[in-house]
Amino acid sequence: MDSCVCAAIAERDYRLAFLHVSYGQRTEPRELKAFQDIAGHYHVDEKLVCRLNHLAQIGGSSLTDPAIPIAEANLNRKEIPMSYVPFRNAHFLSIATSWGEVLGAKAIFIGAVAEDSSGYPDCRPEYYQVFNQLIRAGTKPNTLLTVITPVIHMKKREIVTTGFKLAAPFHLTWSCYENTEVACGRCDSCALRLRGFKEAGRQDPIPYALC
Amino acid sequence: MDSCVCAAIAERDYRLAFLHVSYGQRTEPRELKAFQDIAGHYHVDEKLVCRLNHLAQIGGSSLTDPAIPIAEANLNRKEIPMSYVPFRNAHFLSIATSWGEVLGAKAIFIGAVAEDSSGYPDCRPEYYQVFNQLIRAGTKPNTLLTVITPVIHMKKREIVTTGFKLAAPFHLTWSCYENTEVACGRCDSCALRLRGFKEAGRQDPIPYALC
Repeated sequence: MDSCVCAAIAERDYRLAFLHVSYGQRTEPRELKAFQDIAGHYHVDEKLVCRLNHLAQIGGSSLTDPAIPIAEANLNRKEIPMSYVPFRNAHFLSIATSWGEVLGAKAIFIGAVAEDSSGYPDCRPEYYQVFNQLIRAGTKPNTLLTVITPVIHMKKREIVTTGFKLAAPFHLTWSCYENTEVACGRCDSCALRLRGFKEAGRQDPIPYALC
Repeated sequence: MDSCVCAAIAERDYRLAFLHVSYGQRTEPRELKAFQDIAGHYHVDEKLVCRLNHLAQIGGSSLTDPAIPIAEANLNRKEIPMSYVPFRNAHFLSIATSWGEVLGAKAIFIGAVAEDSSGYPDCRPEYYQVFNQLIRAGTKPNTLLTVITPVIHMKKREIVTTGFKLAAPFHLTWSCYENTEVACGRCDSCALRLRGFKEAGRQDPIPYALC
């Protein structure tokens, strides 16, 4: 839903190109379906679907290693959760930068959320500031790409509200870490999403096992 | 040869783990053979071989797009050459960081060369300084990984001299952008290598088509 609201924000000012990365996460096929559905909704022709095998080879996360169970939600957890995929967002942003440089794109939108999130280190604002420095240092002088994180300081409630304001197709999105048919309602990602919709006074249009 | 000399430098102080990335470059199988041979030479058991399909999907480089010819060497070129693979090294370093974080590694060695090179933006010292900031911002607090670039300020001649001093197995390395059996001797990479060996007063042990 964070990516989808980013797309809704971006499409007011930019022509969109959509990047999807399958990296061996449990809900890979469902996320890819969401990507294709949302791309269809916004009539996006410029699409790149990538498959990374190495994040699952490397492991160290409950999202990519089937031997590590998905934890029940704990939104008051202080430590970094087992769902953290080591340095994952750098892989996504590197692909977006390489592609953006060839396309001549101006901006990379990513739906990172800092405070109201699972506490991943690669979702913090300073991380994206440094990534923008990295793009300037590591691309051609005439490449003018900037990573934009429009929802990074938002509460999930505000992301829901913003999405409804911009008619974002929430019914096409997927957030659950565990399931691909009916969202589990029990993992961190479901819990954050459900709380966001509740606080916004809105109905989440996707199906949940426990609702 | 730059990676190999890095390994020779690193193995004095560290236990080695070797990363190879096949990214659709023309000389992929030959580079993988070099990787395996050099890993064997240093008795490295901890190895990760990754395949990235997206750099070739994205294109924009003579190394990954067969429709763009490999240019004849021009070591006085001022602009960024067509062999530049957009933002390539960020992909390599992101994999190394994810893997290093799971392994509990302390350092990532990369054989980037700044001045005496083809002029790629992602080979400059400031790029690696920023990448180290990115690692600190985007990994767990107890992850203490640093990218080390021991040959970045060296001339190719010094890399050759250093390699001989440390008994680096140059005969197992591969640098040619074009060929996989006998090095072409005509691309930038061959030209830089041959000049380095010549200036060091050493014989390059690999076979060349034009020698």
